[in-house]
Amino acid sequence: MTTKPRTPSAPMALQGGSAPAAALPSSALAFARTEYHERLAAVRASMEAQGLEALVISDPSNMAWLTGYDGWSFYVHQAVVVGLKADPLWWGRGMDAAGARRTVWMSHDHIFGYEDWLVQNPEAHPMTVLAELMTDWGHGQAAVGVELDNYYYSAAAHRALTEGLPEAEISDATGLVNWCRAVKSPAEIAYMRRAGEIVTEMHRVIAEVAEPGMQKNALVAEILKAGALGTRGAWGDYPAIVPMTPSGMDATAPHLTWDGAPIPRGVPTFFEIAGCHRRYHCPQSRTLFFGEPPKKYRQAEEALMAATAAVMGAARPGALCEDLARAFSSTLERYGFRKESRTGYSVGLSYPPDWGERTMSLRAGDTTELQPGMVFHFMPGLWLDDGGIELTETMLITEVSAEYLANTPPGLVVKP
Amino acid sequence: MTTKPRTPSAPMALQGGSAPAAALPSSALAFARTEYHERLAAVRASMEAQGLEALVISDPSNMAWLTGYDGWSFYVHQAVVVGLKADPLWWGRGMDAAGARRTVWMSHDHIFGYEDWLVQNPEAHPMTVLAELMTDWGHGQAAVGVELDNYYYSAAAHRALTEGLPEAEISDATGLVNWCRAVKSPAEIAYMRRAGEIVTEMHRVIAEVAEPGMQKNALVAEILKAGALGTRGAWGDYPAIVPMTPSGMDATAPHLTWDGAPIPRGVPTFFEIAGCHRRYHCPQSRTLFFGEPPKKYRQAEEALMAATAAVMGAARPGALCEDLARAFSSTLERYGFRKESRTGYSVGLSYPPDWGERTMSLRAGDTTELQPGMVFHFMPGLWLDDGGIELTETMLITEVSAEYLANTPPGLVVKP
Repeated sequence: MTTKPRTPSAPMALQGGSAPAAALPSSALAFARTEYHERLAAVRASMEAQGLEALVISDPSNMAWLTGYDGWSFYVHQAVVVGLKADPLWWGRGMDAAGARRTVWMSHDHIFGYEDWLVQNPEAHPMTVLAELMTDWGHGQAAVGVELDNYYYSAAAHRALTEGLPEAEISDATGLVNWCRAVKSPAEIAYMRRAGEIVTEMHRVIAEVAEPGMQKNALVAEILKAGALGTRGAWGDYPAIVPMTPSGMDATAPHLTWDGAPIPRGVPTFFEIAGCHRRYHCPQSRTLFFGEPPKKYRQAEEALMAATAAVMGAARPGALCEDLARAFSSTLERYGFRKESRTGYSVGLSYPPDWGERTMSLRAGDTTELQPGMVFHFMPGLWLDDGGIELTETMLITEVSAEYLANTPPGLVVKP
Repeated sequence: MTTKPRTPSAPMALQGGSAPAAALPSSALAFARTEYHERLAAVRASMEAQGLEALVISDPSNMAWLTGYDGWSFYVHQAVVVGLKADPLWWGRGMDAAGARRTVWMSHDHIFGYEDWLVQNPEAHPMTVLAELMTDWGHGQAAVGVELDNYYYSAAAHRALTEGLPEAEISDATGLVNWCRAVKSPAEIAYMRRAGEIVTEMHRVIAEVAEPGMQKNALVAEILKAGALGTRGAWGDYPAIVPMTPSGMDATAPHLTWDGAPIPRGVPTFFEIAGCHRRYHCPQSRTLFFGEPPKKYRQAEEALMAATAAVMGAARPGALCEDLARAFSSTLERYGFRKESRTGYSVGLSYPPDWGERTMSLRAGDTTELQPGMVFHFMPGLWLDDGGIELTETMLITEVSAEYLANTPPGLVVKP
């Protein structure tokens, strides 16, 4: 293990060493090149406003939004480096450089792969190689922003990068790119509408096939199938979160998944799921009862639907995120309910583990002004003492008000 | 946003404030309590060997293995704290404390939830609250290990925890718990065998339903359905990685997922998938051709099968990880092929984004001695200049040799 990893973009496992991949066209980009260029310009404007000369992007959603890169490779260290002039650099594991060549819009001399012995090796860190690459590209003494609070930027990654760039001035730029993503383009909204059609179909399947006593995993199998099949016009991509489908007491907890137990009568089962098309999400939740729901749940349903109406009445450009939270909680309180957690968050392009964009939250203290093109997963849900109810919607802010991106009938799903 | 978050385990959104959940039994644990106690003892022995008095576990796989905690909540900060005497503490978002009460073996006074305004709030970090909790439990001046290179332990989390524990001595304990997981118990092996049955069924479905020109996402829909349905004896859980299913040139890259394009003739499509039961994985890959494969791929198949036989011949307790890598690559070289990336890694219990355990790798330089009960995803795969071939197996080290956990026929899958 003495090799120094300095070969950029090393082709992997080639017979005879030929590397024609670099000469071939990429798979179809999800967006026009002009749109990528506009995104890059927006990010650079934010960088300049924060005094940054380079940005290291580890969030796979941000990497994809900026470059088109798409692959399940975020379990190893990888990044996109944005400077103020040259096109972005894609940097990652050598074998994933092939995936970058297939998916990014930059020319292939901006793609750099590190050697495989650096993968999950406690004796060396790939970020050391990234530091060398950044130095080669003139960022050795730059003001560098990093995504300090991101899943894919570990404490060890930060330590190795910082040690490798001793003359750079490194600061926190968590959320910089995410905020540039807050207002969706028409092309992004078109993808999210397709995701909305997909999740509508997924909920239709639940209402159609769920039966009392059916094993929960068998119902999830149908949900997953419907999600990947998609609709006539839109193939289904994988959502960034798997279906959350708890019943009864397990539905007092919002984030349990499923097992092989039968779906019971007399208690709620909620389904928090999303349709996904080309990595763009439309989450939506519904709650299922076999038999007439207990009165308490009918009251909760009434309260949530009234609060939802209040929010939709308040949602328009110029209103603040916290205004929607206030409209929601004040209505809910009139019905005798309380929800302490945030009532929504921004959604769009995502990779696991979260379909939220981690920018705006619909909660007290968030004074972000709504703008046309913002999209929120609005979360009317209550986790009661013996179960839970979720009736959530993905909501697009339009020029004058707001609209839903999915078309599932409102309210509880009740089957005999 | 002035509230100080000091209420441990705050019940969320209760009508009238009653919290009977704490008094109710948890969902069935995946393992006997004695097994959890043995795991804890093993971790404490490693802690003492490294001079650690407390351990902060952020890896959801490690959290689940130690405590039973199961929920898709790892997109917010959460942890398990292990000291040398008291039972572990579960700490996470307030609403997820309900999920902890449903899934962990510890008593509920060891479950602590933080308030929701700390979620994804750039002005405050929940790790500050964890530092206070740890101080309350006597770890304020302890030798504390953290998982410095983990997806779910960001650079910002480390900074906030370090600042909150100024008198503690914090050091890197990445992999400490993972290494304790290397040798599986009989109960764990039983779950992995069930996962093996599930992945066998998933590959059977691929061979049955795949047709030339079928949209890739429609085939993935069937794969996902089969994976969640599981088998008669085992319900299907979600694998930590979604199906990777590239065709043709996209199969020169190992980690691309799928889209809506038709599955083409004349080029390989590989399927890297896993069966999963109660979070335990059995990955396995196969490669599909419609029509007779080009000679080069038949040669690659022959080489991989010979190399696989060499590895299975060498796999036994006492052999080293690198011995298997050497058996593999020397055989492959005799056939004129080369694979530079590692040829396998340890697998078991996992959450996204990786089904690997991030401990042993089958590669040069890894001198870990094989022991009965270790399980590897053995990765005979070649990414050639115009496509890829993967024929991989999950392999259990037995008392005398090794065996496969899945039962899919070997070699290329060829359909008319």
